[in-house]
Amino acid sequence: MRRNIVHPGAGKLKYEIREIVAFARELEKWHIPIIWENIGDPVKKGEPVAGWIKDIVREKAGEDNSYAYSETEGAREAREFLADRVNRRKKISLPGKDREEYPNPVTISPEDILFFNGLGDAVAKVFGFLRREARVLGPSPAYSTLSSAEAAHSGYEHLTYRLDPQKNWMPDLEDVEFKVKYNDSIAGILLINPDNPTGAVYPTEVLGEFVRIARTYGLFIICDETYANVIYGGAKTAALSQIIADVPGLALRSLSKEVPWPGARCGWVEVYNRKVDHRFDLYIRSLLDAKRLEVCSTSLPQLCIPAIMGDPRYADHLTRRAAVFEGRAEEAAAAFTGISGISLVKPRGALYATAVFDPLTMGDEKQEQTRYLPVSDPSLGEFIKEKITGVAPDKGFVYWLLASTGICVVPLSGFASDLPGFRFTLLEYDDEKRRRIYKTLAESAQEYLMPRSIPKLGLIL
Amino acid sequence: MRRNIVHPGAGKLKYEIREIVAFARELEKWHIPIIWENIGDPVKKGEPVAGWIKDIVREKAGEDNSYAYSETEGAREAREFLADRVNRRKKISLPGKDREEYPNPVTISPEDILFFNGLGDAVAKVFGFLRREARVLGPSPAYSTLSSAEAAHSGYEHLTYRLDPQKNWMPDLEDVEFKVKYNDSIAGILLINPDNPTGAVYPTEVLGEFVRIARTYGLFIICDETYANVIYGGAKTAALSQIIADVPGLALRSLSKEVPWPGARCGWVEVYNRKVDHRFDLYIRSLLDAKRLEVCSTSLPQLCIPAIMGDPRYADHLTRRAAVFEGRAEEAAAAFTGISGISLVKPRGALYATAVFDPLTMGDEKQEQTRYLPVSDPSLGEFIKEKITGVAPDKGFVYWLLASTGICVVPLSGFASDLPGFRFTLLEYDDEKRRRIYKTLAESAQEYLMPRSIPKLGLIL
Amino acid sequence: MRRNIVHPGAGKLKYEIREIVAFARELEKWHIPIIWENIGDPVKKGEPVAGWIKDIVREKAGEDNSYAYSETEGAREAREFLADRVNRRKKISLPGKDREEYPNPVTISPEDILFFNGLGDAVAKVFGFLRREARVLGPSPAYSTLSSAEAAHSGYEHLTYRLDPQKNWMPDLEDVEFKVKYNDSIAGILLINPDNPTGAVYPTEVLGEFVRIARTYGLFIICDETYANVIYGGAKTAALSQIIADVPGLALRSLSKEVPWPGARCGWVEVYNRKVDHRFDLYIRSLLDAKRLEVCSTSLPQLCIPAIMGDPRYADHLTRRAAVFEGRAEEAAAAFTGISGISLVKPRGALYATAVFDPLTMGDEKQEQTRYLPVSDPSLGEFIKEKITGVAPDKGFVYWLLASTGICVVPLSGFASDLPGFRFTLLEYDDEKRRRIYKTLAESAQEYLMPRSIPKLGLIL
Amino acid sequence: MRRNIVHPGAGKLKYEIREIVAFARELEKWHIPIIWENIGDPVKKGEPVAGWIKDIVREKAGEDNSYAYSETEGAREAREFLADRVNRRKKISLPGKDREEYPNPVTISPEDILFFNGLGDAVAKVFGFLRREARVLGPSPAYSTLSSAEAAHSGYEHLTYRLDPQKNWMPDLEDVEFKVKYNDSIAGILLINPDNPTGAVYPTEVLGEFVRIARTYGLFIICDETYANVIYGGAKTAALSQIIADVPGLALRSLSKEVPWPGARCGWVEVYNRKVDHRFDLYIRSLLDAKRLEVCSTSLPQLCIPAIMGDPRYADHLTRRAAVFEGRAEEAAAAFTGISGISLVKPRGALYATAVFDPLTMGDEKQEQTRYLPVSDPSLGEFIKEKITGVAPDKGFVYWLLASTGICVVPLSGFASDLPGFRFTLLEYDDEKRRRIYKTLAESAQEYLMPRSIPKLGLIL
Repeated sequence: MRRNIVHPGAGKLKYEIREIVAFARELEKWHIPIIWENIGDPVKKGEPVAGWIKDIVREKAGEDNSYAYSETEGAREAREFLADRVNRRKKISLPGKDREEYPNPVTISPEDILFFNGLGDAVAKVFGFLRREARVLGPSPAYSTLSSAEAAHSGYEHLTYRLDPQKNWMPDLEDVEFKVKYNDSIAGILLINPDNPTGAVYPTEVLGEFVRIARTYGLFIICDETYANVIYGGAKTAALSQIIADVPGLALRSLSKEVPWPGARCGWVEVYNRKVDHRFDLYIRSLLDAKRLEVCSTSLPQLCIPAIMGDPRYADHLTRRAAVFEGRAEEAAAAFTGISGISLVKPRGALYATAVFDPLTMGDEKQEQTRYLPVSDPSLGEFIKEKITGVAPDKGFVYWLLASTGICVVPLSGFASDLPGFRFTLLEYDDEKRRRIYKTLAESAQEYLMPRSIPKLGLIL
Repeated sequence: MRRNIVHPGAGKLKYEIREIVAFARELEKWHIPIIWENIGDPVKKGEPVAGWIKDIVREKAGEDNSYAYSETEGAREAREFLADRVNRRKKISLPGKDREEYPNPVTISPEDILFFNGLGDAVAKVFGFLRREARVLGPSPAYSTLSSAEAAHSGYEHLTYRLDPQKNWMPDLEDVEFKVKYNDSIAGILLINPDNPTGAVYPTEVLGEFVRIARTYGLFIICDETYANVIYGGAKTAALSQIIADVPGLALRSLSKEVPWPGARCGWVEVYNRKVDHRFDLYIRSLLDAKRLEVCSTSLPQLCIPAIMGDPRYADHLTRRAAVFEGRAEEAAAAFTGISGISLVKPRGALYATAVFDPLTMGDEKQEQTRYLPVSDPSLGEFIKEKITGVAPDKGFVYWLLASTGICVVPLSGFASDLPGFRFTLLEYDDEKRRRIYKTLAESAQEYLMPRSIPKLGLIL
Repeated sequence: MRRNIVHPGAGKLKYEIREIVAFARELEKWHIPIIWENIGDPVKKGEPVAGWIKDIVREKAGEDNSYAYSETEGAREAREFLADRVNRRKKISLPGKDREEYPNPVTISPEDILFFNGLGDAVAKVFGFLRREARVLGPSPAYSTLSSAEAAHSGYEHLTYRLDPQKNWMPDLEDVEFKVKYNDSIAGILLINPDNPTGAVYPTEVLGEFVRIARTYGLFIICDETYANVIYGGAKTAALSQIIADVPGLALRSLSKEVPWPGARCGWVEVYNRKVDHRFDLYIRSLLDAKRLEVCSTSLPQLCIPAIMGDPRYADHLTRRAAVFEGRAEEAAAAFTGISGISLVKPRGALYATAVFDPLTMGDEKQEQTRYLPVSDPSLGEFIKEKITGVAPDKGFVYWLLASTGICVVPLSGFASDLPGFRFTLLEYDDEKRRRIYKTLAESAQEYLMPRSIPKLGLIL
Repeated sequence: MRRNIVHPGAGKLKYEIREIVAFARELEKWHIPIIWENIGDPVKKGEPVAGWIKDIVREKAGEDNSYAYSETEGAREAREFLADRVNRRKKISLPGKDREEYPNPVTISPEDILFFNGLGDAVAKVFGFLRREARVLGPSPAYSTLSSAEAAHSGYEHLTYRLDPQKNWMPDLEDVEFKVKYNDSIAGILLINPDNPTGAVYPTEVLGEFVRIARTYGLFIICDETYANVIYGGAKTAALSQIIADVPGLALRSLSKEVPWPGARCGWVEVYNRKVDHRFDLYIRSLLDAKRLEVCSTSLPQLCIPAIMGDPRYADHLTRRAAVFEGRAEEAAAAFTGISGISLVKPRGALYATAVFDPLTMGDEKQEQTRYLPVSDPSLGEFIKEKITGVAPDKGFVYWLLASTGICVVPLSGFASDLPGFRFTLLEYDDEKRRRIYKTLAESAQEYLMPRSIPKLGLIL
């Protein structure tokens, strides 16, 4: 070919959650059976899709309309249903508090909802059609799809505020406010609630602070609410629409993790206070114009939304699942209790737990050369030693863990974070297997950090 | 908001096929019932989805796996099925021809197939991840999603070669070759076969010329084969894989128009000769990396592909549909026969017909001021006259047509074309209604061009 | 022309100091004689060039070598002379201070000096060849050439720290440090010492703080030292090289304002600690590569540098001029003493004084409609009233001032500042005329702010 | 430093004419005396500056005004003088020709002239302020400053038309027209007349064809007329202003090569038909706005222009120089006559001659390994052999030539050309030395191409 067609940004698209898969596949020649703890797909991990939900989908699949294009914005009946749901959200009350009340929730119309082919598609457009010079401040650790999108749109590395594992992964709000105040390129704040990968759920007061900062400095808010219906452990929070008052904002929602139906690629954006700012409105319009070139998003899942989410069984379904995840979160936390050099904040939402290594211990350069986990074959040990040259310390652990135990987790460094650690899922459906996984993870982490006097070797078990 | 967040390219995303809808909706206050001839959705126009196909989908919707994520590249079973289909394509024979033979068809592996959420998603990534300085030469008229994508990726207007209505909409191959030769920024050629909007189907020799030009000048080829299974009227053509030999190329395919299942948003790219050029391979890898950030494409339709397309009834299904469209193409052509000032090449593939006004008659500036079609209410005539100020001449016709007859077609100027004309569909399922539509279109066009001595008015019918 | 050739950034290049001239010229039809107080050209304002300096230039103009190209970096003899001058700078002592000592001055070689066609050329390249994502934090008010260059290179508005007129225009160092800390796109800090337009001269401790911040956060420093030899009023400061220690930095110097020889377009960059950081070195090399495409900078002035600046009379020349400017700075300060609603910090370096209106008084919207200065002809008043619609308040004053008195000053809003005010020069050579100018400026400002009950009119004097 | 500040385009700024100097300097350790034939500086090569011209400069250097800023556009008296000169240019007559007459020359006002700090500065702005998507088609070979500027502004490689050494380096006008016709991103055409590096002078008919193409396709013209007063050998040509009629255009002129005064960095742009196209006018205004940020260009040389160029002795001065260069051009041509494998078109303008190797002979890969020139020291031979790995074939010759003879020329591959060859100057003032240089060049080229059976070695002379 006479011209180079490779985009200069080609090598920069990183999605560790799926890239680790390619590495795991390389271990096949040593016949290591892989236990996939990297990706948040409840169905693949054994959760059956409820029969009544499948019945609804089958029924819709019998109607011709489900095969047709839908409106570019999304099927009208789905948008009407969802707008109505938003508009029924309650005002947050503050019993016994003397500061000013929370605001009335915002209400929206069906025109304020835009469907996408999953939130990955939504995020690509939400960031891709932002003006290059309008930055969005997001969390660290961060879900890679979001952080990569902000980095790609701006040409800079992703701009982040700190989530603090010492404080149950709550955001460092002083860091947020100072960054906003002293960096006037920031046009918006991104939050994920419940958070992926940390499992944190933000109390209403924390959300209120985000809104206060956005209003004070004239920003808009993007809130990823993928896991809004996966909250447990008594966590109290609010939807963005309940707290945002008059600040322009977007909430991102999806069928993926709560039905669960990740294969639907059906997510939507709820737009709040669209008319408050002329340029915000123009921006939202550009998202719709971009979508129009792709005609529409997948019809069938949209058409199922009113029937599934409007079904009286749906609330129970969500409650039951929350209880399940609460139990698993406790198991995960228990497994890491008493393990030195690594800690785990018990998740209160979403489908993941994140263990963080003590940075000092992990960063000890003298020890770094001696770390390993036992493997079944010396050639596998040699292979891993070669592969971890120059990679982040937590990725080194993840590689050894894979080789030693077959468990595939995601290094925290793959989530735009400086903290060493790893994320695993709460999804394994087989109770005994899940508990064994958590125990193995905790013990492997401890073993990995153990000071050793001899250089690391791929010892045979 | 303290910063402008609107992207400078925001106003440039144009998709006339859906934008005309907004205009049509404005006519509601005059109670004009709209006949939608603008968009290529067979299901919305009444074509029933085959019972056996719906049965397959319903069955798959009963399996948990259909709810899970699929591989980023697409479900393995679908890719294996499709790769096998490609590999069974026959060598094109050339009986009685003395020039050198056509090459062997290329074969591919499942890794050479990438699924997307419909071809709109595929096109956005195929162009979005091309290096900015690598241009793709495409047809004019052109399907807007393709032309907008090339324009957006390069920062220039879309670069086009001419399809000639005087020669059955065949490409002006001299124009193609000279543009390629004298503009070294061109890295690839785009063709649509069968073509949208013209309905042209390229003979194998024409495809061979595209391949020869690509090989001579070191280009890659993108062939949109959305309508590859919607060919009729005895047209002979070839799949790109049958003719491309050793040139790097992409074919774009989809379930939308042949099942038909446009609401699936399920399309895929077949990559040919990926390893022939290192940079082509890197480019393809960047498409996969981009997709990975969105995890995967919609699972259910992918999982249905082997069952639907591998069903023995599928071939008959396609044949039967082709016969139907052939009949409608003849009806359309007949309706425009003998109408002066406008011509229509009988389509031989895809779902559309395109009528072209005689540019001299249409462009006659003296007449321009007097053109109109009769409408039911003077205020509607006033409204249309105001709206057509400054718009392209064929869009003027489309607006009057809407007001006068309620038929909604797409102006050819909305397809990156300088020729005045309009596209309508072959999709109306009701035979009588369809014939009446075609007759009305032809008569309205004739009436519109009629020389008048008085200024145009919104006369009452 | 078939294509639009106008750059999208075309309208954004603003240089108020010269644009005000175009406005002043429009007043010619009212026969207003203009007194140019806008531009810093000592020669145009009557300062004679010293005879002995002209003798040196004439002598060099007799040598063929002065007509030849010089080296791209600049004439070797000039670079050797200047490097030697840098290397003779003394260590700053801190008698009686208990904190740690100032560092040793850096030394450089002739290779660390690059000549440009004046500092405008230098600034265009220093910013133009910075990576787009590497921002430079600079002062507000700011000299327009610098702020426009940073804005153009980054695509954002210029990023600024505050100079505080309440504190003798000293930089708000907390603002500097917080912006650096919370905005990690900042790669460098710009300072102007002595400052244009404020006349501030930074004490060594302030410079030391800039260096501390740069070292702490890993930044480089750009110091515009155009006026380094025009310091008076007992101000104590240091050259950047005396204080920068091991931080990478650039000092910008010029013949323009001290010989004075602005028409020479002869400025140079001194590079400090080039080898401390590999990327800093690469960046400096790219400046030289860019200059090489223009071959070299003007030869004759470079060749005169050793003879002029090395002449024993040069030190006296600088001392004598400093005394002159000190006197004029006192005159300017005296003129504004006791004037309410406007204040002026007595300059201690450079060639300008900046008067600042009280923002509350100036911003009083009720009064805004009634402000004017008396003019000689009602049509002139009408003209001014029309021209000030939508312009910054201080620009409104500047226009009325021109119309009323013919004195042309530059509004402070033209210096990337939110403060209302104006800059005028200390350059008028005719003592009586100069005092009259200062008096008129102060009185006009006072009259302009005077509360009035009637709407503003172009009253005849 | 915490951020990377190096611009991604940093390594792409290439100026072979000066870069070869760095290589030559590396040979110093073998004590090779260098003969600089690479750069077009008449003064450095011994041409004395005329006494009367130096007298004028000295006189102006005695006037204070020469030390002051000039107007941003340039000193009014210089612009008035030059505009008058343009307006006196005669209409080109066409005795005995039957095709239509040449047009009237365009006339300009002083506002149509903009001064820059040499044409390098002018070229940087002329291309830098063109819209990125407006390409300029220029010659190959090309003067590097121009080709680099076009490449940098567009993000593509420079877009070129062919100058044909078989046809006295005339432009391939068919190539020009086809590229313009089939590449609609082209907004302008660049020509250099007389041409650098080839020494070609374009006959009026050729210029007329450029104008015809520009008018037919709606382009503007940039004509580099640096050497307009260095024409000899009976060449007939025209100034762009004499032939451009109503097409928008720019001529670039300079004092550098005709006074000669390259060290002045004094060049100017003459703008023709500025008001013919609104966007052309806006573009010209953006050049002035850009210059305004640098205040102005060097004053002294501008102020000398009327006195020097208006002096009655100036015409004789130009005639005398032309005769000198004509003689040298003949010497150069004679030296290469009869040398096989290399050819040289006798220059008819400018200060250079370009020898072109027979591409087949030079490109013979078998021979490539055996080529060398004798050097004085085996270690020098080893050094050269190492340095030429991977460099263009003509650069290989240039390196061996330097090592063997000390003569420094510029490879033609450094002028955006695919042809192998080299450029040398007609500037050596010492007659005997110059003839010896030309003889050595021709003989070395012949020796270099000589087929050899043994691998190349650094043989001792």
